[in-house]
Formats: sequence, C-alpha cells, structure tokens
Amino acid sequence: MAGADDSMDVPETDELTPPNRTLMGPGPSDVHPRVLRAMSTPLVGHLDPSFVEIMDEVQELLRYTFRTDNRWTIPVSGTGSAAMEAAIGNVVEPGDTMLVPTNGYFGGRMASMARRAGGEVVEVDAPWGEPLDPAQVSDALAEHDPDVFGFVHAETSTGVLQPNVPELTAAAHDHDALVIADTVTSIGGVELRVDEWDVDVAYAGPQKCLSCPPGASPLTLSDDAMDKVLSREEDPRSWYLDLSLLEGYWGDERAYHHTAPITNVYAIREALRLVAEEGIEERWERHERLAGALKAGVEGMGLEMNAPDEYWLPSLNAVRVPDGIDDGEVCGELLERYDLEIASGLGDLDGEIFRIGCMGHSARPQNVIYAVTALGDVLESMGADVDPGAGVTATRGALE
Amino acid sequence: MAGADDSMDVPETDELTPPNRTLMGPGPSDVHPRVLRAMSTPLVGHLDPSFVEIMDEVQELLRYTFRTDNRWTIPVSGTGSAAMEAAIGNVVEPGDTMLVPTNGYFGGRMASMARRAGGEVVEVDAPWGEPLDPAQVSDALAEHDPDVFGFVHAETSTGVLQPNVPELTAAAHDHDALVIADTVTSIGGVELRVDEWDVDVAYAGPQKCLSCPPGASPLTLSDDAMDKVLSREEDPRSWYLDLSLLEGYWGDERAYHHTAPITNVYAIREALRLVAEEGIEERWERHERLAGALKAGVEGMGLEMNAPDEYWLPSLNAVRVPDGIDDGEVCGELLERYDLEIASGLGDLDGEIFRIGCMGHSARPQNVIYAVTALGDVLESMGADVDPGAGVTATRGALE
Repeated sequence: MAGADDSMDVPETDELTPPNRTLMGPGPSDVHPRVLRAMSTPLVGHLDPSFVEIMDEVQELLRYTFRTDNRWTIPVSGTGSAAMEAAIGNVVEPGDTMLVPTNGYFGGRMASMARRAGGEVVEVDAPWGEPLDPAQVSDALAEHDPDVFGFVHAETSTGVLQPNVPELTAAAHDHDALVIADTVTSIGGVELRVDEWDVDVAYAGPQKCLSCPPGASPLTLSDDAMDKVLSREEDPRSWYLDLSLLEGYWGDERAYHHTAPITNVYAIREALRLVAEEGIEERWERHERLAGALKAGVEGMGLEMNAPDEYWLPSLNAVRVPDGIDDGEVCGELLERYDLEIASGLGDLDGEIFRIGCMGHSARPQNVIYAVTALGDVLESMGADVDPGAGVTATRGALE
Repeated sequence: MAGADDSMDVPETDELTPPNRTLMGPGPSDVHPRVLRAMSTPLVGHLDPSFVEIMDEVQELLRYTFRTDNRWTIPVSGTGSAAMEAAIGNVVEPGDTMLVPTNGYFGGRMASMARRAGGEVVEVDAPWGEPLDPAQVSDALAEHDPDVFGFVHAETSTGVLQPNVPELTAAAHDHDALVIADTVTSIGGVELRVDEWDVDVAYAGPQKCLSCPPGASPLTLSDDAMDKVLSREEDPRSWYLDLSLLEGYWGDERAYHHTAPITNVYAIREALRLVAEEGIEERWERHERLAGALKAGVEGMGLEMNAPDEYWLPSLNAVRVPDGIDDGEVCGELLERYDLEIASGLGDLDGEIFRIGCMGHSARPQNVIYAVTALGDVLESMGADVDPGAGVTATRGALE
C-alpha cells in the first residue's frame, strides 16, 4: 500500500488535559456531572428500538421545558445555529418577507439566514441594548405585511430580556405572520411559555441554561407552522435541515434520514431530566435568585449594569466596563489567574461591556461568589475604581 | 409566574440505561473506551486559548488521516450529512452542473443536495452494486462538461469499494471539473490518499471506521476548491455550513461563528489519536484482515457476498439474504437474542442483502467471531441452508 505520501509525519498528540475552567461566559456553561457521565455511555444504533424510546423521552422532556404540546418538538443535529437555520430555512420560502429586529447581534443573523432562504428582509428598528416596543412592531407589521416575524427573547449580545411577548405575537398574528422566537439563552433559565404566549416556532441551544454540551439543539413548531413547512412549493435549501425529511425520522415512521448524534441525544436527555426533577418554574426562580446575587455583587463593587432592571436578563448579565479599563485584558487575567471564563462585548457593544453568564449548573452560589470575587480582584489590580469587599458582601447578603 | 399551562405533567424519565449492543451495522460502530472517557471531560469555552490548541491538533490529525496537506481540513459541526452538505453546498454554485453517480444510495443524496444548492444535476449511469467505470465517467464528462464531479469511494448501501480513483480524478481534471469524494465509510478503514489521488474535496463521518460518536464530521478541501468557494458570487444557501464564514473560526482569525460542539471535538481528537498511534496503513491492514475473517465466515457457512472480490469493501460487507429468509426478522432476532446490530439493505437492495460493518473498534476478533457465530445460529434456527460450524471454523482459520 506504499504511496508517495508515506513520508507524512505521524502527529504526536498528548492526552486530552484541558484546563479546569469555571464557565461564566455567554455559554457553554458548566455541565452537570450527570450529563458528562451520560456522554460516556456506549452507543446504540440510531435506528435501534431502544433509541426510538429515548427519542420519545427527549421529545416529551423538550415539550415540558418549552411549555408546549407541539408535536413537532425535536433536538436538531447540530449546535444552536443549526436549530436557528432549521427554523428560518424551512418556514421562510423564496419570495416571503421576514421582519427581523435590529436590537442585537442575533437579529442580524436571522436576516442573513432569511435572505439565504430566498426571503426578503425588512427590519423593525430598535437600538442595541433596548427591547422591542410592541407599538413599533405593530407599525412595522402594518407597513411591511411580512409572512414571518422573528424576535430574540433573550439577547445574548446585550443582556436584554424581551418583555411583552404575548403582545408581540398577537400583533404578528393580527397580520397573519408566523412568529419565530430565538430562545437560545432563555430556555430553562427564564420564564418561557411557547403555547400560552402563542409562539409558532422557537429554537434554542443546549449549552446555556440547560447546561448541556452543544451538539443537539431544541426546536419546536406549532401545527400551523409545520403546515406551512409541509406545503412548501419548493424544497428547503438545506437537505440536512429539511424538516419534511426530519419528520420521517422523528415522526411516526422512524425512517432513516441521517445518523443522529446519539451521544448528544443522551446528553440532552440527562440535562432535561435535571430540568424536570428541579421543576421548570423552580429553575426559573433559581436563575433569578442566583443571577440577582451576581448583579448585587457587581453593582455593590461599583459597576453598572448595561440594561435597566425592567429588561435585565438573569442568564446573561451585561456589565459596563469601567473607564480606563481594557475589557480584553480583564477577561485574559480572569482566565489566566482564576481559570474563570467571562466574555467581552459583541458588535455595537464591543469594548463596552463584560458578558457574565449565570446559566444552568453555573447558576450556583459557588460560581457566583467566585466570579464576583475574582472580577473584583482583577479590576482592583488594574486600578479600576471598585470596592471588591463591598461586592462580595452584597452577593452574600443576596444569597442569604 | 403562574400560567395556564401549569397543569402540564412533569415527565417521569428513568436513568439512562440503553442495552449493551455489539455494533456491526453500517455505523455507528463500537466506540473505544478512551473516546467515551474523553467525552466526559468538563468543557472549556469554544474560544478558549486551550480550545484553539485542541482545534489545531484535530486539524493536524485529520490531515494525517485523510493523507493530505490541505490547509482547509476541519471537523464540521454536525453528522456526516452535514459535512456532505458543507462540501456540495459551498462548491456547487447556482447554475453549476454536477455529475453524480447512480450506483448507490448516496449518489442520490448528492443529487438532492446539488439541486438545493442551485445546481443542475447530470448522471453517470452504473447499476446499484457496481463501481463506476472510468471510461463511462470520461464519456459523461465529455458529454456534460460539468463543473463538479462527485463519487462515492465506499458505498455503504452496496458494500462496493470504488477502485481506480486516480483515473476518475484525472478524467475530471482533464475536463476542469472539481472532484468531491464521499469517504464516509472509507476514512480510517480502507486505503484513502486525498493528495496523491488528487481528490479536491472529501467529506466523511466519524462514526464508521474512526469509531467516534457522530457529531463532528471530517471535511477537507484543496486550495483550488477553496478558491472557488471564496470567490463565489452569491453566498452559499446555508449560513451554518458557509465555509467562508467557518474559515474565520477555523483559520488564522479564530473569530466567533457558531459554538463548536466542544465535546464532539474532544471525542474526534481522541479517536484520531488512536488512528495515529496505530498508524494509518496498519489500520487499513487491520480492517482488511478482520473483515477478511468475517467474509471467510459468512462464505464458509454457505452465504454469498453481494460484491465481487475486486470491489469488496472491508468496512461494509454486503451479504446476500438466503432464499426464503426474511432479512428484517434476522436483524430483529440478532438484536433481541444477541444484542448484536447488523442492518438490512437500502434502496434497490432492500430485502436482498444484510449489511455487516467491520469498522474501527468493531474490527476486532471478539466482534467478528461473535457476529459470525450469532448470524449462523439465527439463520439455522430459521431453517436457512447454512453450516454455522463451518463458518466459525473459516473465521478462526482466517484469524490465525
């Protein structure tokens, strides 16, 4: 079997020994040990009758977590952006118009996906760091008459939680538009009620408030939305993410489409079991309580939150970078000295905010106290005008 | 936080305890314990400097395994079909013509993806279960003048290995067509030399001869192919699989595109380390030896291989179903009584063949002897005209 390429060196690669980080960035969050253990389970085939049972269980647990009875509730075989593209690429047909927001990074991604699906994009204006105003959304709906309206429930780039979701969906439905919600950073962490709020399509990521490694990502569609998908005139532009084909695998037929990422399905099953054991509302409350202690800590040391309290997103805390401080240096020091991950800003807020996650298994007293302490120490050592002791005291008080 | 959906029942889901299968189907194959253990490693962030190092290592190991120096060698964030769509959806531009084969299931999938990318599809005819004839490919190239030519190196649906790859690529290049090779079932299991054979683009799956759980899938592109991708007039139709954007993440810039499936990258790193430790050529030889023992066993008991010896694909053994025997029943009995997975036929060969994989960590004496024994027992119990003892004897002989 000798060939001309036999001289190619054999790469020498050491044992996998990544650093032991504490993950308080915008995701991934710390993964629960039970989920990690589930991932070391030997595989069964993706068409094995025992795997079909596991698929049923995952679908039921996803429905519980999304608060929906939607039949079309599945984990998409990819990361959150794959679930996002499965939503937009199937619901938006060539010639359709999609209304997207401009108030954060992920509205821009929605626009790009809608255009690639063959859709026209129109925008509802809102500055970065502000939620959408239902009146403005109504005006945009009246002006553009879109087929689809997308919004971001929890904007990871700005730390803003969209309030008044039922008003937004009612306005969209008044104009016969289907609603797609980005719930990547809200699912399992802040109140989200797909059915009660009349959201037609919601997609999410597993590596945020579900604390599950990325690789299989939640998606749910109402019957109305799925009717549109199944009556398309033209095939969706992705075969991999074609929901009419995936329906054959995740629906009654269980026909082969692609090889599901079996281990990732094991993982999300265990992560969702933890959600069910805790109770979804108790989980929302825990995030609010723990993130509240984090917020008390950063405010207590003298820092400012980027979002006003009414729009505060517990799972992603956007904190203003103090004057004269380089955000990248702070993140680097935290990683280097404390093995702690937080993140810089993105897009319009690049250089202006830190993004500190408080998600899933990372929404724990250990992580919150550690993050507040480490951030205070590093900022003080860089000469920022902060009072680390007051920060820790405020966090302790909030946790009592 | 009370809402109208509070009555939704909390799903009761037991601990994850799937059956302990021996996987000898068309994939997934048995996963090496070291790979399973790597998957229980706590996560670092997808932009962590330590993860960037891991990405470099995975790219280097993938180059070794593909036998290529291609810079653009990455694991795609999805299963093998995602890598396939990343290849076709980026290289085929609207208005391009792609030549695809008709000799198996996956040529059909290539055609569907090429059409969705906006391409025209033309076909080179070859019956199911036969390899492509270079002369016929040349004729088709001359007749249709395609921009892209796709072929399947190891056809999982028929158990046929495509010989004469350098002749196919030379013919394509004579007509200025780029070559995309489906190496899903060949990578790490049978001889594959991307550079020496002048393959422009190759994609693969991790869950076959690499014995890695599905979720991050190998893809490599030559500079010529990547030049075409980077000079496209129109964006590819998938944002998630847009290689010009992925280049920002996997290239020098390391800019955020999407959240990589960190645990799956850990897994493929460990699976590829095992390849490098064994040596790629030694690994090809092991597959041939162990699959040879499997083949000796099924032939020894009186069954017939579907493919002639010249086209035999060691990693996927297509065995004719004996007269009067229901293939589905056999597979069911093997699963039920022996916890052993093999598969039925697909497409044109549905009901006519068993598909018995011999891949990666499943290409071991334990698995081969067990599979031959169990298959003989079940067929005999169903009244097939087989001699199970002779099968096991032949396997033992071949393993000596």
